[in-house]
Amino acid sequence: MPRVGVIGATGAVGRVLRELLREWDDVRYFASARSAGTELDGRRVEEASPDALSAGGLDLCFFAIGAAASLELVPHAVRGGAVAIDKSSAWRMKPDVPLVVPEVNGGRALEHNGVIAVPNCSTIQLLVALKPLHDAAALRNIRVATYQSVSGAGTQAMDRLRAETVDEHDARGDWTFDGEEFEEEAKIREEVRKILELPELPVQATCVRVPVLVGHLEAVWIETEEALEPEQARRLLASTRGVRVVDVPSPAQAAGEDDVLVGRIRRDPAAPNGLTLMVAADNLRKGAALNAVQIAQLLVERSALAA
Amino acid sequence: MPRVGVIGATGAVGRVLRELLREWDDVRYFASARSAGTELDGRRVEEASPDALSAGGLDLCFFAIGAAASLELVPHAVRGGAVAIDKSSAWRMKPDVPLVVPEVNGGRALEHNGVIAVPNCSTIQLLVALKPLHDAAALRNIRVATYQSVSGAGTQAMDRLRAETVDEHDARGDWTFDGEEFEEEAKIREEVRKILELPELPVQATCVRVPVLVGHLEAVWIETEEALEPEQARRLLASTRGVRVVDVPSPAQAAGEDDVLVGRIRRDPAAPNGLTLMVAADNLRKGAALNAVQIAQLLVERSALAA
Repeated sequence: MPRVGVIGATGAVGRVLRELLREWDDVRYFASARSAGTELDGRRVEEASPDALSAGGLDLCFFAIGAAASLELVPHAVRGGAVAIDKSSAWRMKPDVPLVVPEVNGGRALEHNGVIAVPNCSTIQLLVALKPLHDAAALRNIRVATYQSVSGAGTQAMDRLRAETVDEHDARGDWTFDGEEFEEEAKIREEVRKILELPELPVQATCVRVPVLVGHLEAVWIETEEALEPEQARRLLASTRGVRVVDVPSPAQAAGEDDVLVGRIRRDPAAPNGLTLMVAADNLRKGAALNAVQIAQLLVERSALAA
Repeated sequence: MPRVGVIGATGAVGRVLRELLREWDDVRYFASARSAGTELDGRRVEEASPDALSAGGLDLCFFAIGAAASLELVPHAVRGGAVAIDKSSAWRMKPDVPLVVPEVNGGRALEHNGVIAVPNCSTIQLLVALKPLHDAAALRNIRVATYQSVSGAGTQAMDRLRAETVDEHDARGDWTFDGEEFEEEAKIREEVRKILELPELPVQATCVRVPVLVGHLEAVWIETEEALEPEQARRLLASTRGVRVVDVPSPAQAAGEDDVLVGRIRRDPAAPNGLTLMVAADNLRKGAALNAVQIAQLLVERSALAA
C-alpha cells in the first residue's frame, strides 16, 4: 500500500477522506499551521508546509484545501515524489492534468504528470449519470439547474446554517453563489467538455445554493443525437456501476451514500430526443473525497504508483 | 366598495389577504368551525358554513382554502350572489371558469360565471415573467425547475420547519411533492396552456420543495419562434408592470414584495433561439393573495360587480 498524506485533514472533505482511508495502512494528516499539533483519530496533525511535503516519504497525497493553497503546495508534494490527487479547482483545466471521474474516464488517470484533478462536485454526479446515456445515444446538449448544499462551501458555512433559525436564514437570503456564481456554472460547462472530450458541447448550468447541509440535487435536461426512451435510459442506468436508480432522488437519500442516485427519468416534450432526469449525490463523498479515493484505488490496482 | 368575505382567513394566504384588504371598508372573515368565534384584527371570525355563504350580503368572496372544501363551499357563495375568487386548484381547469393573472389575461376575468380561479403560485410568477417575451417573440417551449418554499404547503408546514434543526430537516428529507409531485408539475403545464391559450405548448416542469419559509424561485429555459437577445428581453421586462429586473433573483429579496423579480437573463447555447432566466416571487402575495386582490380590483374598476 502507498504511503499516503491527507492535506486539509480537518476540513469537511478531509473528514470524509479520513473515514474512507481508515483501512489504509500508512496515512499521515496535514493541515494549516493553526491546526498542526492537534490530534485526529489518535494521530498528530502535521503542518502542511512546503518543506514537509517535498521531504519525500509520501507516494500519494490527497489535497482537500482551497485553490490558492493547492497551487502553492501541490508542486512541493510532486517534487517529493508523490502523486497529488487534488479536489480544488486549481488544476482542473490545465491541459496536462487529467480531470477524472473513474466511472467516466478512469483510464485518463494513468496519463498524469504528478497531478490528477477531481472535478467540481456538481460535475461528477452529472457525468456519472449521463455517461451511459451519452455512450448509447450521443449527447447533443445539457441543461442543468442545481440545488447545492452548503457543505460545498466548507465547514464554516455548515456551522453558520446550523447556528441560525430558518427565519434568520430566510432573511439572510444566502441563495446564490454571489461573485462566484458564473464561475461555478462555467466550471460545470468546461469540466463536462474536458471529461467527455467534447469541446463544443452546449452545457447551460444554473447554480443555486439551498439551505441543506449535505447532498446536491440536480434537475437535468438532455437532448441526444439518437432516440432514447426513458425506459431504455432507466435500464442503462440500472446496470451502471456507481449509479442507483430510485423513484425520486433527494439529498437526504444521497447523504452518506457512495452511489449517485438517478430518478424521475421522463421524456421532455420540448425536444424530439429530449429527456429529463434528476440526480442526487453526497457532495462530500462521490462529489469529492470518494471520487479522489477511487482514483487512488485505480492507480494502486494498475500498479501506477511509485511505491 | 363591494361587501367582501375572506374564507380561510386564518391560513397562510388568508393572513396576507387580510393585510391587503385593510383599506377595504366592508370585509368579513370566515374560517372552519374550529376557528369560528375567535377574533382577528378586532373582528369575529364567522363559520364558513353553506348557510352563511348562501345567505347573501356578500358581493365578493376570496376563497383561500383547500380544493375539496372549495368545491363544496364556492357554489353556496355564488348562489348567495357573490363572485368567488378562488386560490385552490378546484376550479382552475373548468372550461367556464376564467384562470386569471391580471398582467397576462386580465380581460378574461370579466367573462366569469360567478367563479374566477387564481393559478398555482408557480404558474403566476412564471407567466408574469414570460408574457412580454411571448408577445415579442412567440414561445416555442418552456422548461422550468422550481425551488418552492414550504409556505406553499400551509402554516403547519411552516411551523414544522421552524420547529426543527437543519440536521433534523436534512434527515427528514422533505424535498419533493411525494404523491402530489407529478400533479404540481402537470398543474404548471395545463395552467400555462390555458392562460396563454396555447393548448399544445410544450411545458416541462420539475418541481422541488426547499427548506425556505416564503418565496419561490424558478430556473427557466425558453425557446422562441423569433430571435430574442438577452438585452432585448431585459428591456421588455424592465418596462413590464409587476416585474422588477434584478441581478440575481432570490426568495429572500422577493418575500414581502409585490413585484415578480426577474434576472440572470442569458442566452441558452443549447438552442438557436434559446434564453434562460431566473424568476422569484412571494408565493403568498403575487403567488396567491395579491393576485386574487388584483383580480377583485379589476372587477371593481370595470364595475363588474353586482354591488
